[in-house]
Amino acid sequence: MRIGVLTAGGDCPGLNAVIRSVVHRAVVDHGDEVIGFEDGFKGLLEARYRKLDIDAVSGILARGGTILGSSRLERGKLREAAANADQLRRDLNLDALIPIGGEGTLTAAHMLSEAGIPVVGVPKTIDNDISATDRTFGFDTAVMVATEAIDRLKTTAESHQRVMVVEVMGRHAGWIALEAGIAGGAHGICIPERPFQIDRLCEMVRERFARGKKFAVVCVAEGARPAEGTMPYERGEIDAYGHERFTGIGNRLAVELEKRLGTEARQVILGHVQRGGTPTAYDRVLATRFGWHAVEAAHRGEFGNMTALRGNEIVMAPLADATSELKTVPQHRMDESEAVY
Amino acid sequence: MRIGVLTAGGDCPGLNAVIRSVVHRAVVDHGDEVIGFEDGFKGLLEARYRKLDIDAVSGILARGGTILGSSRLERGKLREAAANADQLRRDLNLDALIPIGGEGTLTAAHMLSEAGIPVVGVPKTIDNDISATDRTFGFDTAVMVATEAIDRLKTTAESHQRVMVVEVMGRHAGWIALEAGIAGGAHGICIPERPFQIDRLCEMVRERFARGKKFAVVCVAEGARPAEGTMPYERGEIDAYGHERFTGIGNRLAVELEKRLGTEARQVILGHVQRGGTPTAYDRVLATRFGWHAVEAAHRGEFGNMTALRGNEIVMAPLADATSELKTVPQHRMDESEAVY
Amino acid sequence: MRIGVLTAGGDCPGLNAVIRSVVHRAVVDHGDEVIGFEDGFKGLLEARYRKLDIDAVSGILARGGTILGSSRLERGKLREAAANADQLRRDLNLDALIPIGGEGTLTAAHMLSEAGIPVVGVPKTIDNDISATDRTFGFDTAVMVATEAIDRLKTTAESHQRVMVVEVMGRHAGWIALEAGIAGGAHGICIPERPFQIDRLCEMVRERFARGKKFAVVCVAEGARPAEGTMPYERGEIDAYGHERFTGIGNRLAVELEKRLGTEARQVILGHVQRGGTPTAYDRVLATRFGWHAVEAAHRGEFGNMTALRGNEIVMAPLADATSELKTVPQHRMDESEAVY
Amino acid sequence: MRIGVLTAGGDCPGLNAVIRSVVHRAVVDHGDEVIGFEDGFKGLLEARYRKLDIDAVSGILARGGTILGSSRLERGKLREAAANADQLRRDLNLDALIPIGGEGTLTAAHMLSEAGIPVVGVPKTIDNDISATDRTFGFDTAVMVATEAIDRLKTTAESHQRVMVVEVMGRHAGWIALEAGIAGGAHGICIPERPFQIDRLCEMVRERFARGKKFAVVCVAEGARPAEGTMPYERGEIDAYGHERFTGIGNRLAVELEKRLGTEARQVILGHVQRGGTPTAYDRVLATRFGWHAVEAAHRGEFGNMTALRGNEIVMAPLADATSELKTVPQHRMDESEAVY
Repeated sequence: MRIGVLTAGGDCPGLNAVIRSVVHRAVVDHGDEVIGFEDGFKGLLEARYRKLDIDAVSGILARGGTILGSSRLERGKLREAAANADQLRRDLNLDALIPIGGEGTLTAAHMLSEAGIPVVGVPKTIDNDISATDRTFGFDTAVMVATEAIDRLKTTAESHQRVMVVEVMGRHAGWIALEAGIAGGAHGICIPERPFQIDRLCEMVRERFARGKKFAVVCVAEGARPAEGTMPYERGEIDAYGHERFTGIGNRLAVELEKRLGTEARQVILGHVQRGGTPTAYDRVLATRFGWHAVEAAHRGEFGNMTALRGNEIVMAPLADATSELKTVPQHRMDESEAVY
Repeated sequence: MRIGVLTAGGDCPGLNAVIRSVVHRAVVDHGDEVIGFEDGFKGLLEARYRKLDIDAVSGILARGGTILGSSRLERGKLREAAANADQLRRDLNLDALIPIGGEGTLTAAHMLSEAGIPVVGVPKTIDNDISATDRTFGFDTAVMVATEAIDRLKTTAESHQRVMVVEVMGRHAGWIALEAGIAGGAHGICIPERPFQIDRLCEMVRERFARGKKFAVVCVAEGARPAEGTMPYERGEIDAYGHERFTGIGNRLAVELEKRLGTEARQVILGHVQRGGTPTAYDRVLATRFGWHAVEAAHRGEFGNMTALRGNEIVMAPLADATSELKTVPQHRMDESEAVY
Repeated sequence: MRIGVLTAGGDCPGLNAVIRSVVHRAVVDHGDEVIGFEDGFKGLLEARYRKLDIDAVSGILARGGTILGSSRLERGKLREAAANADQLRRDLNLDALIPIGGEGTLTAAHMLSEAGIPVVGVPKTIDNDISATDRTFGFDTAVMVATEAIDRLKTTAESHQRVMVVEVMGRHAGWIALEAGIAGGAHGICIPERPFQIDRLCEMVRERFARGKKFAVVCVAEGARPAEGTMPYERGEIDAYGHERFTGIGNRLAVELEKRLGTEARQVILGHVQRGGTPTAYDRVLATRFGWHAVEAAHRGEFGNMTALRGNEIVMAPLADATSELKTVPQHRMDESEAVY
Repeated sequence: MRIGVLTAGGDCPGLNAVIRSVVHRAVVDHGDEVIGFEDGFKGLLEARYRKLDIDAVSGILARGGTILGSSRLERGKLREAAANADQLRRDLNLDALIPIGGEGTLTAAHMLSEAGIPVVGVPKTIDNDISATDRTFGFDTAVMVATEAIDRLKTTAESHQRVMVVEVMGRHAGWIALEAGIAGGAHGICIPERPFQIDRLCEMVRERFARGKKFAVVCVAEGARPAEGTMPYERGEIDAYGHERFTGIGNRLAVELEKRLGTEARQVILGHVQRGGTPTAYDRVLATRFGWHAVEAAHRGEFGNMTALRGNEIVMAPLADATSELKTVPQHRMDESEAVY
């Protein structure tokens, strides 16, 4: 077989582990040829690729980023490509295409698949918001980075009688804020799924100070927003999902808390540190398994699917399902910690 | 309610996170009273306990070990206690008992439950070998510690043209060796589930050296053993599971590889470092959820069960199931990496 | 002896290690009594203190923050206290006072010392800008945190063809930016000691992209500023040192680089994560040694001094010298890496 | 200039950082040619080398091991080479040779220098036992790895009422045991410089248990040995330094403590994990500075020297001095903690 692989969309720890696993399984065990397209779908459309043998993936298992590069998706060009899918496939002589990416990438993969390209997708998002799989690689690393930051901030908050507001990634789903908040023992957690009540956060802080715990940590997803009419804020831009996008909610929240409480409040925005660097062991294992199973699915001819984790097993899920619904944090998951939401 | 909590068996990162979560949920939300028995079942039988309020569990979320202590299980005494379960319960005035422990502890918990003590168990083992739950807390931390060690050893192996043998925990199940081996990119993985072929390991090393990769890493579970007649070794003691127990398989393997290959081979035994210290974010979240759900189950009167992870959800599983069968590594999981087994 | 200890000023990993070491040396070896003042000099002036025995400092060696708390220095009140130094000393029955703090604290300590209080200071600053000592504890931890962040950011910058700007602490001295920049392999380093040339930074980025390295990392101290007239910026506030203070230089620099280069540029502000949490081994050793030597100096009656590292040895330096001159980064230290300054 | 660089002796985090720094300074700034000899002096004698340009050292700053490889020193061959130094130099057309290595390497470097090869050495040892420099790179990383292990072991020791014995590297000098012991808060530290008293260790453990601290950690250098006649042990081999070499002192000590105290004692041998993997920020900075200064010294013609850290500055020290005396732990350094020695 001749298998093409590409990485698209935002960065995510574990991408290289998938690429490596695809090459190991396909080249070594099946005797396949593997080519890697550069800069995501762009490389596919421009036929920019390089051969990936076992030496090409040596030493990349634990490395962040992607050796293939990534770039923004150009929908128009992709539609054009889909319209000429047969031509594209023949030109590139592809028996299978393994695109690794998030929601946008998987939607594009689905389109190409419908147009006749033999696609096996691999889901990737640090946000963990893809319904068809229990977890995605990259998420565990992001949570770990955020948790370590909260661990550090707690001691400094305690010594200086401060409220610390930590802004983590998550525009539409609050999984990182939820899990890092629980793991770090944050006292407040604000996520996009539920507008937060500034009053309740203030009350929580006051109650803590009253019983001698003179600090508090609030973990806030970048997409969190206050409940209507509870605190002043400008309306954000409405994005493609119909969600309102805020910039700097961490900062606004810290300012508001300080104003209302008369207690020092400081903010830290973790930003891109969450999506770069060495993946955790968990993410390396999941990424390696996804790569292995994607090759197997290609050899079994199960195209139009993507790899997914269900319990402890890797299964194939239809690409159509992958992007039908965002996996957001349900109420019962918010309940499983004592944090104020 | 008056809820008793205890930790028993070997150390496991996340024990304190469970205790903290139990106290937070029970005391703060339900207004329960929580008492912590000291040194496992010993404290239960000797009525040695202390009240656990919210201050007692402050700052322990990320701390390894257990604030309650632990000690070996005395079966005989436990049976005696089971025989007088009603008395024990009345003396301690217990509405629920939450024992946190591994297979031995859960078996004991089951016995007490059958005798009439209202028990909700929380499974704990760094070995991840309990069938009723997808994963146990402590395991992720152990894998992370082992993976970081392999990461470090790979660079030194490479510079010195060596074979490194890393012995990790796992007497009856090879999960730690499997996942740390995959995450660390070990070239050989030896687990109790499948006697290893020294010939195949040697061949793998030779093949690597032949194509210019002048090092190799083998990750070996402490319970791994060579296939019958393939390499000299003394028979080990037969343990309670009918398994043969080896001590120092890492050392024996390194010596044998060096002898057969004429290449330097060194061993590292990770030992207790794998079971102490700060839990990973993953383990803290799982432990916190287990604690929360154990309290809820107690309030719903669902005794005789233990908390379990299924996919992304926490469910209750009968204690009887928990210990019926050891969860070992199945063949298809070994296949998902290129390592030699 | 009766020894008082206090921590003042901003947070710094290693404070607890000093407190622990003072108690261990004084109480266990000398049979002294040690009292810890709460919230810095405030606790001294208000006679708020608690006895510190060996149990009080158990388990704090690796913990960030300070168990004694800290608060802002009120100069006026301190002068008043100095005017009544004899009274203060008698009231508290102090044989020695060990204040642990940065430049402001040591200046205050010097004032109290001149007024007759028997003081042995311990210098503390993550900025490493105290002349009298080779290094201060806390600095190594801050550099480590910043370096780990740069490590993570490099892989994501590389995958996405970006310039990453990392803003680290350092208002008046660029030590953290210098060492984290070198350790992380930053391609540009901007520090307060030398106004940066935006043109040179742009040229460096272009040169890198031209030879195929399609990313760059710039490490910028919060106190860095552009050379006069080279890029638009509003004048900052002039602080007590006569330095101009900027807020958000990282953000401004990213915006300017993106505008001039037409390449995506992103910023990350590390903030308080640098000054909280577990100290590195280096900082724990230095802090422990400082604490031990402070007690010894008190017993030898060498007051009016502070502990200082010179080469591998701890010596006593006059408090007067401690604050006479800020230790800034000299030219020859900037030369020792290939980064653009 | 044409500069040769090689790495010899045991592995040490930071070697790649030196190589990278030499190339950056020499090639980019001076326009020099740099060649890297493979496998240490072996590559020099066999003229096995490759050209090192800026791309050859890309991405290696944070990587453990050495891209040039290393191998054992063959003294006889080296003497032969020294006898034909002029020939060797002409054949290789070398203007300067920068060997990076420990005591053995520097002794060899000194011999070659005396024979007329223009040498600038760079000292390297995780043991930190070279007199001419305040510190060597690699040491900080080794201490960090050992400290993190002790941190983990403390919690598990505490939960299980155990004595943990941690064996770290250090055959002739106890620096790693000393600093990791202090940083980790070990209660006993055993180093080669001072035969340990098993009685005093037992007394320390008993005293801790008596006051309710039911665990203890002893950090022992691999070269530590018991005081004459205090506990049974077989004489070890006498090594080249006239020191007695022990294997497995950690194990023997654990067995003896358990026997005498009746308390569980467990050992962990950290081994090679201490010398591989990503260097700390401190070691990366020191290694980068050593590389830079080695090139400068070569350009100034200051041969026969090696780089050395004195306080905060890098200076040149005669190679003759480097190896004259091992830098061991002096008494006053043992005093600066409360550990039993």
